[in-house]
Amino acid sequence: MSTPDLRNVYQGYIQCLNQQNWSALGDFVSNDVHYNGKRIGVSGYRDMLERDFKQIPDLHFTIALLVADSATVASRLQFACSPSGVFLGLAVNGRHVHFTENVFYQFEGGKIAHVWSVIDKAAIESQL
Amino acid sequence: MSTPDLRNVYQGYIQCLNQQNWSALGDFVSNDVHYNGKRIGVSGYRDMLERDFKQIPDLHFTIALLVADSATVASRLQFACSPSGVFLGLAVNGRHVHFTENVFYQFEGGKIAHVWSVIDKAAIESQL
Repeated sequence: MSTPDLRNVYQGYIQCLNQQNWSALGDFVSNDVHYNGKRIGVSGYRDMLERDFKQIPDLHFTIALLVADSATVASRLQFACSPSGVFLGLAVNGRHVHFTENVFYQFEGGKIAHVWSVIDKAAIESQL
Repeated sequence: MSTPDLRNVYQGYIQCLNQQNWSALGDFVSNDVHYNGKRIGVSGYRDMLERDFKQIPDLHFTIALLVADSATVASRLQFACSPSGVFLGLAVNGRHVHFTENVFYQFEGGKIAHVWSVIDKAAIESQL
């Protein structure tokens, strides 16, 4: 799979998330997906995302930076949203906050197999 | 500059940091460098790194993942070290901690011009 293809696949994945099109998630995410070193599988991945959208009703993924090679995508994601309660251990309670997530995705067989994410919790803390 | 070149440049930059070879820092970092959206310049960048090594005497940068295109490098850096006092607002006080940093570098003229870093503060908190 060439690099432009992986960029396109990733953009399709982000569109899938923003549309909450969970029936298509398995087109982008491996059955055996690992998140930050732990196997959660595609069903655990879907549970995580559905929980995120429940806790953050106005959640929207925006790609700020995107780098890809033949097997890996790195993305800087931007968020401007209002988590309804406690988020990342912080009592956000509906306040509007801005933050970023820098995240790597390793692809296997054209699907996301490993995700290594870091969310900028300190940025949220500074806004509370 | 081709992608393999930028990977090589970045590996040279990390070697420069680990050797604390500050006189060579300007070979890798633009005079006008911005860090997380703020212009700090190469002298401010050097000050930041020297402060990091003062606060964390056993600091060492290890590249876990590296993705590059013609103008951008994304790197997942791993750290296993012992910050001597307060680090990222956390009272680490010499305890040995493991954490990661996911960071993007935009290059201009072969040098790092913009850095977008997120450090996994939550991982450190969970070890204290």
